[in-house]
Amino acid sequence: MENKDFLLREGERLDDLQRDGLKIIQNPEKFCFGMDAVLLSSFVEVKKGERVMDLCSGTGIIPLLLSAKTDAEQIDALEIQKEHVDMARRSVTWNHLENRIHIFEGDVKTVSTQFGKGIYNVVTVNPPYMNDNHGLKNPELPMAIARHEVLCSLEDVIRESHHLLRPGGHFFMVHRPFRLAEILSVMRDYRLEPKRLRFVHPYIDKEPNMVLIEGVRDGKSMVKIAPPLIVYESVGKYTQEILNIYAF
Amino acid sequence: MENKDFLLREGERLDDLQRDGLKIIQNPEKFCFGMDAVLLSSFVEVKKGERVMDLCSGTGIIPLLLSAKTDAEQIDALEIQKEHVDMARRSVTWNHLENRIHIFEGDVKTVSTQFGKGIYNVVTVNPPYMNDNHGLKNPELPMAIARHEVLCSLEDVIRESHHLLRPGGHFFMVHRPFRLAEILSVMRDYRLEPKRLRFVHPYIDKEPNMVLIEGVRDGKSMVKIAPPLIVYESVGKYTQEILNIYAF
Repeated sequence: MENKDFLLREGERLDDLQRDGLKIIQNPEKFCFGMDAVLLSSFVEVKKGERVMDLCSGTGIIPLLLSAKTDAEQIDALEIQKEHVDMARRSVTWNHLENRIHIFEGDVKTVSTQFGKGIYNVVTVNPPYMNDNHGLKNPELPMAIARHEVLCSLEDVIRESHHLLRPGGHFFMVHRPFRLAEILSVMRDYRLEPKRLRFVHPYIDKEPNMVLIEGVRDGKSMVKIAPPLIVYESVGKYTQEILNIYAF
Repeated sequence: MENKDFLLREGERLDDLQRDGLKIIQNPEKFCFGMDAVLLSSFVEVKKGERVMDLCSGTGIIPLLLSAKTDAEQIDALEIQKEHVDMARRSVTWNHLENRIHIFEGDVKTVSTQFGKGIYNVVTVNPPYMNDNHGLKNPELPMAIARHEVLCSLEDVIRESHHLLRPGGHFFMVHRPFRLAEILSVMRDYRLEPKRLRFVHPYIDKEPNMVLIEGVRDGKSMVKIAPPLIVYESVGKYTQEILNIYAF
């Protein structure tokens, strides 16, 4: 299966993840992973032997990065778009990770019915950020489904994550700061207690455009806000912390 | 009433607020205002002619600073501790602000019954931060009442602020980041929608120790997170922004 052409379909390319020789199949005309996925993977903590579920997994970037970063025993991933599921599976095959990563086609809204309740140590998710579907020209396009809450809502994601996790299990999500109040309040409603937040600012004097969130199922109410994560020191020049995250 | 000795009681001193010649009476052995009050006043926006209520007002630092900063027509202040009410009233007298600032003795828990509902454009509050009264040696001490939720809870403050405000009225609070999830979620429960947050970090690479919060009664769900407010550039050296805030 090491033949690149055998694995790639039209319009696809094989991108180097710059760690452990990992590669990912993407179609640049449809959807490519962004910095949010890289920062989320860096924010996630998984202990040796734990079971992880990645929801809204897209082409599988989070499972791939977590396989390199952590000693997770099993990383399951759920994705609703057939085409992404297919690309993610071929990436897993290319990287010989069939024993650790399993890609499932399925719907977040009913995932805990499909997989069972209280069975994961960690749930990760880089969900659609936008709840305003107004102006979407074609809500069936892969990009629209990945970015807008067309097929699942924030509440679906949080409710199902709660169900999937064991008591004390950890939830990690990246999202947009403008939805913070809603996020924290829905997490509390579903007893996924917010424990750690980190805001990602493009520059030190700019508003954040991402927020990394950790919650604990049935945890005590007490949030830790990390120092700001700054992306650029000056135009085109990443901060040392971002370079370290990418160099991992 | 310009005779300083006439206004001061034992243990009290008259501190210069460094703006418009304003002074405040404080008793350094019991309670002095901190940077949180100064940053909250700087964060608050009041339009000309508006009515403001400051809850948990202590010795009246917020009303005094807002009288200099804004064109508020009327600034009411509520405080439960007799001794603070008395000091605040004497500060108002010293500064000849009897026409704009009125200090009331009363209980936050029932303030909207005392004053009426839907009558203020702006509510400000620097409430007790700590909800864990464990280990408090004497919960009746003025300092304990100002810092711990001995006499009122976060929910009391938010519920009553909602009642006091007109629809569309603005709520401004300073609090501790570790309670952020609870704060945002209770605000949403009482339809005081969180609209703007600013975290205050002692240094750029440290966790924040304060958060400034603006909410709007019956507002739409959409939060703006401001760039971080950094206090120190290096040990003992304030950032330019802090110097600007204090120099106002």
